[in-house]
Amino acid sequence: MKNTFGNLLQITLFGESHGAAIGCVIDGLPAGIAIDEDLIKKQMEKRKAKGRISTQRHEADEVHIVSGYFNGYTTGTPITILIENTNTRSKDYTKTRYRLRPSHADYCAEVKYNGYQDYRGGGHFSGRLTAPLVAAGAIAIQILKQKGIEIATHIENLHGICDTPFHHEETMLTQQINKLHELEFAVLDDNAAQAMHSCIEDAAKQGDSVGGILESCIYNLPCGIGEPFFDSLESHLSHLLFSIPAIKGVSFGLGFDFAKHYGSEVNDALYFDTKVKTKTNNNGGINGGISNGMPILIHTVVKPTPSIYKQQDTIDAKTKEAVKLVIEGRHDPAIIHRARVVVDSVLALGVLDLLLEKEAASHL
Amino acid sequence: MKNTFGNLLQITLFGESHGAAIGCVIDGLPAGIAIDEDLIKKQMEKRKAKGRISTQRHEADEVHIVSGYFNGYTTGTPITILIENTNTRSKDYTKTRYRLRPSHADYCAEVKYNGYQDYRGGGHFSGRLTAPLVAAGAIAIQILKQKGIEIATHIENLHGICDTPFHHEETMLTQQINKLHELEFAVLDDNAAQAMHSCIEDAAKQGDSVGGILESCIYNLPCGIGEPFFDSLESHLSHLLFSIPAIKGVSFGLGFDFAKHYGSEVNDALYFDTKVKTKTNNNGGINGGISNGMPILIHTVVKPTPSIYKQQDTIDAKTKEAVKLVIEGRHDPAIIHRARVVVDSVLALGVLDLLLEKEAASHL
Amino acid sequence: MKNTFGNLLQITLFGESHGAAIGCVIDGLPAGIAIDEDLIKKQMEKRKAKGRISTQRHEADEVHIVSGYFNGYTTGTPITILIENTNTRSKDYTKTRYRLRPSHADYCAEVKYNGYQDYRGGGHFSGRLTAPLVAAGAIAIQILKQKGIEIATHIENLHGICDTPFHHEETMLTQQINKLHELEFAVLDDNAAQAMHSCIEDAAKQGDSVGGILESCIYNLPCGIGEPFFDSLESHLSHLLFSIPAIKGVSFGLGFDFAKHYGSEVNDALYFDTKVKTKTNNNGGINGGISNGMPILIHTVVKPTPSIYKQQDTIDAKTKEAVKLVIEGRHDPAIIHRARVVVDSVLALGVLDLLLEKEAASHL
Amino acid sequence: MKNTFGNLLQITLFGESHGAAIGCVIDGLPAGIAIDEDLIKKQMEKRKAKGRISTQRHEADEVHIVSGYFNGYTTGTPITILIENTNTRSKDYTKTRYRLRPSHADYCAEVKYNGYQDYRGGGHFSGRLTAPLVAAGAIAIQILKQKGIEIATHIENLHGICDTPFHHEETMLTQQINKLHELEFAVLDDNAAQAMHSCIEDAAKQGDSVGGILESCIYNLPCGIGEPFFDSLESHLSHLLFSIPAIKGVSFGLGFDFAKHYGSEVNDALYFDTKVKTKTNNNGGINGGISNGMPILIHTVVKPTPSIYKQQDTIDAKTKEAVKLVIEGRHDPAIIHRARVVVDSVLALGVLDLLLEKEAASHL
Repeated sequence: MKNTFGNLLQITLFGESHGAAIGCVIDGLPAGIAIDEDLIKKQMEKRKAKGRISTQRHEADEVHIVSGYFNGYTTGTPITILIENTNTRSKDYTKTRYRLRPSHADYCAEVKYNGYQDYRGGGHFSGRLTAPLVAAGAIAIQILKQKGIEIATHIENLHGICDTPFHHEETMLTQQINKLHELEFAVLDDNAAQAMHSCIEDAAKQGDSVGGILESCIYNLPCGIGEPFFDSLESHLSHLLFSIPAIKGVSFGLGFDFAKHYGSEVNDALYFDTKVKTKTNNNGGINGGISNGMPILIHTVVKPTPSIYKQQDTIDAKTKEAVKLVIEGRHDPAIIHRARVVVDSVLALGVLDLLLEKEAASHL
Repeated sequence: MKNTFGNLLQITLFGESHGAAIGCVIDGLPAGIAIDEDLIKKQMEKRKAKGRISTQRHEADEVHIVSGYFNGYTTGTPITILIENTNTRSKDYTKTRYRLRPSHADYCAEVKYNGYQDYRGGGHFSGRLTAPLVAAGAIAIQILKQKGIEIATHIENLHGICDTPFHHEETMLTQQINKLHELEFAVLDDNAAQAMHSCIEDAAKQGDSVGGILESCIYNLPCGIGEPFFDSLESHLSHLLFSIPAIKGVSFGLGFDFAKHYGSEVNDALYFDTKVKTKTNNNGGINGGISNGMPILIHTVVKPTPSIYKQQDTIDAKTKEAVKLVIEGRHDPAIIHRARVVVDSVLALGVLDLLLEKEAASHL
Repeated sequence: MKNTFGNLLQITLFGESHGAAIGCVIDGLPAGIAIDEDLIKKQMEKRKAKGRISTQRHEADEVHIVSGYFNGYTTGTPITILIENTNTRSKDYTKTRYRLRPSHADYCAEVKYNGYQDYRGGGHFSGRLTAPLVAAGAIAIQILKQKGIEIATHIENLHGICDTPFHHEETMLTQQINKLHELEFAVLDDNAAQAMHSCIEDAAKQGDSVGGILESCIYNLPCGIGEPFFDSLESHLSHLLFSIPAIKGVSFGLGFDFAKHYGSEVNDALYFDTKVKTKTNNNGGINGGISNGMPILIHTVVKPTPSIYKQQDTIDAKTKEAVKLVIEGRHDPAIIHRARVVVDSVLALGVLDLLLEKEAASHL
Repeated sequence: MKNTFGNLLQITLFGESHGAAIGCVIDGLPAGIAIDEDLIKKQMEKRKAKGRISTQRHEADEVHIVSGYFNGYTTGTPITILIENTNTRSKDYTKTRYRLRPSHADYCAEVKYNGYQDYRGGGHFSGRLTAPLVAAGAIAIQILKQKGIEIATHIENLHGICDTPFHHEETMLTQQINKLHELEFAVLDDNAAQAMHSCIEDAAKQGDSVGGILESCIYNLPCGIGEPFFDSLESHLSHLLFSIPAIKGVSFGLGFDFAKHYGSEVNDALYFDTKVKTKTNNNGGINGGISNGMPILIHTVVKPTPSIYKQQDTIDAKTKEAVKLVIEGRHDPAIIHRARVVVDSVLALGVLDLLLEKEAASHL
């Protein structure tokens, strides 16, 4: 499957940056779920480009639910979300159509689609495609919340500037999660937030861009979600995370730091305190591909946006001749602060899918 | 889908560590492909436990192809691979059945399968399940080789000891790949190899375990493989990689180091030299989820094996009381040197699946 | 998968009869295919309600392609088709909401969706959902035509009135197919056409409805399409055909008449005449689940529309009390003449999907 | 998907008639289900060739469960069933390899697999592949039985000889079902049974073959199973039924007889009697693709086995020259009496899959 993901909860994504509309179809949601449209709006707001740290293309991103939704409740049939593209300046792209932007999908698209791709604003590759993901994710987030499952993501590291990580202690962690639900710029430490903000603005001034590392937490996920092969919780979530443009690495728990340690240092000892827990959580809440009841901890790296205003070396797609490229148009000096809500969204969709699958087996 | 993966090339994995047999079904291979059984043996040999750096459970791992294979060629119908379990000592496990091993899947399995799981030797969670993956992968590797696509993996970092990384220069890189095809202990630098070997032996002596980081390369993959959503090349490959027990992180190109750099530092400038190339390969051969013709570069982290001989704190699954656990049985002090061929195998299966999909669209 | 069908060519259907819009997403079409919008219009026209033999709800059924289509060609990304609902009279349904219409999905929907379904005009169960199928099918029909594959369907039997069946002789068959491409009321014999027309009008006058049997032909499908298990050509096509509301039987070749004959009477002897052919075509062009190069011959039965104006016995969904029901609103006295183009459409989508799959294997 | 079917309960089928073994993998069954191996044996016995009405190839058909089964219970991981091929006479087939048997898959296989197919005994196309389906189905039947759902099939028509159909009255129907569970030759009326038996024997004496029509009933299936698009209950079940070799037609309820009636004659009026029921059951328990709580009634036509001993016209696959063919080997003069248990099996697998899906949505 290409543009569809999920077993029991399937999401199909469509649209191009400068086409009439972008959107998605969500299939598999049970009937009778009340949708909180305000939460959809709030989530869409978190993804919006604002201020000098984002692109100057400002989209209304009004979400229309055109099917599967009746009198305020899901009907059990496919939910279709439509978002119109309004603020497009397609001419910006036509003149540089054949100047392949470095580290963009331009060359890959040219080869894969044989020149027929909609090249305007990145077409189907545009970050705009994450808008319907956020709308869909907002619905999943509501359902999970009712089951006591919370998802939150913060910028742990922006171009070297570090935020305080998620706490191991539960009360502290839930406070952090609640704080993040309200924050537009998802950084727990206020000084770090300010420093990161300035860092992005500086990059913008220089016509450059920066990236960073997101830390995500799925709190209160019950034990037993995921499969040994091939639908491990890590497999399932990484599949979705790596669909988000600009994400180039995903790790769970200690991640790449596991390489530094002995087994005896990083094994998570079990104990019982109202429920089964582990003293440490180096495995990020997952053993054998299955959730163990501890918080799921995930790191994702978001590369610096490839759209920079500095002059770059590239070639012309037609002549193959070397050319100098200066990108025009409106672009983000960083997308990590907007990507954060996209990460939350796909995590929610992925978790809800597996949760539905677990229910099926449990209640036979 | 749980134990099945793939769109056009589907692999279904089955079996338990101490059951009658483990195996897999491979569906979707065209008819008329000659299978080199010697290569299957060679790959199985690379996965085998040998010497003091691996478990003392030595399995013959003889591969039986019981369907889809006739007169030396694939028939176009499902290929079933069976590997018998012979060297099992199930009693080792019965006595500690309820002592949940830290960082193992024991507790998750107990909850998910309600106590009905085959707990002997890790059951379905055992690393033994990777044996049929290697046999299946060997067939995929042969097919890719005939199309000029090579896959190789080495231990880049074992508990801090580093190997020389893959070269950017093409001739050097192909030499490294060829060397790795022949090596049993996949380390390019001989001194590093010796040091890593000693490090594992030392860990074994202390009843402890170590992990590390693998670097993989898919060489000569044509441009245009992968999808923007949701089957990006990163999504597809990470899905498979995270199915391998003990893998806790996957990254492409610069991976988590992207966080340190400006866009202007890490954008890969394009140029033309017999074909379109990039001067650097920070994106690891993938843009917008699609291969760009440069080598695909992947890092995976393999955690230290959780089976250690040191005493550990845990609980009894039934009584929930705290107990001290000393694991007996035969275990690996490290699996990264065996995991390497498993990584090659799933990469080959994943790439072949997407390649078949590309062919479908191209030849309509 | 619920509302998505297909392996390489996936179609996702959405919408409700009285919602804002109905539509579908088609994923998997290669880039660079010119879409003939006039053919889409022509096919939509064949499905439209006209005259006294159809419902008086007349919808514009204007087809909007909002993604995956650029400068007249497919882009290779998902194609989204939207059709607005305009001519709705939702009040007709509100007053009889709980009076379960016999042989309709009302009761099933009430149970399955727990009362949350959009009940207006049949909601997601409405025959209107076949409109996007026809639009999508029109694109598939164009592609197949370019490969020399033609699909045609006629009403072989309407309430006992019979049309001349498809010819075994090839030149005659192609003439029949060409004639059907142009006909709005798909009956080959003009007298039969007139008699059927009158039969439907008479049923309409009596407030009753009629059904019938469609015969379909897929001409020039190459040998080798379909799989032995479980994706036999019969399985794949019947899956799609039985998705069309009101279809209650599907058969291939002789179908249920096979029960009357000895094997020696119905085996199709092979001979060679420029290509391998069979003297008879009792198997309807399929052996072992795979096309054999002869025309694919299919019968489908369309039941009389359950919406009749005569008084019927039923119960109230809430009180479970017996009630008399007289259906109001606008309804079809027969849908078989409109269903014919829906059958052609799903056959085209199903065949194209399998054709893409065949290409994948052939060109590895 | 080719040789895999199902959403939540997936079955993957493999093997060839004269290979080492045939079998299947069943994935998605919850853990903790006790498997009654005696019922598997009983069902396998019903499929076995016996007496003069079946082939003289007698296979032990011993069922080995090599994974997913531990201490008498399912483990929740994939269940693999293996059945060895023992009584093979491959030489029978080698000499006639290129003489294409009419109405068999020989020619299709030759083209599809480019001559690489295992041609011995029909290879992957053999009716033997239905043996693992029966073993898998037996497990599904057990689970459904525990939920009160019963499945039964009888030969309603064999070459014109008719059995008494399923009763509309519930007590009578359950008696019929219970009788069929015990019968080896599934005919309700004893005189009809005798006449059918003789008819097959006569056909066998003449070196000919006969077919017929099966009537199946799924009793006590709860209302709400199936989807409007594309996984209607009819779609799902017909997909599986048309995978069974020799089945050429599937219908529900009145089936093709719907063409004879007015809507007012065949609409099923609803009434309430302890639960919602319909006075007639012309729709065979399905409305809008969804079960309505009434018995599911299905007809399938099984064509006469194409392997007859009479001389037939065909061509040589290599030279394309006309040749006379006299089939040797051991063959069935009818398979309908053996197919009956295969039909029960795939219906059970199909229903269980959808039931699991329903549970998922209900318990979120």
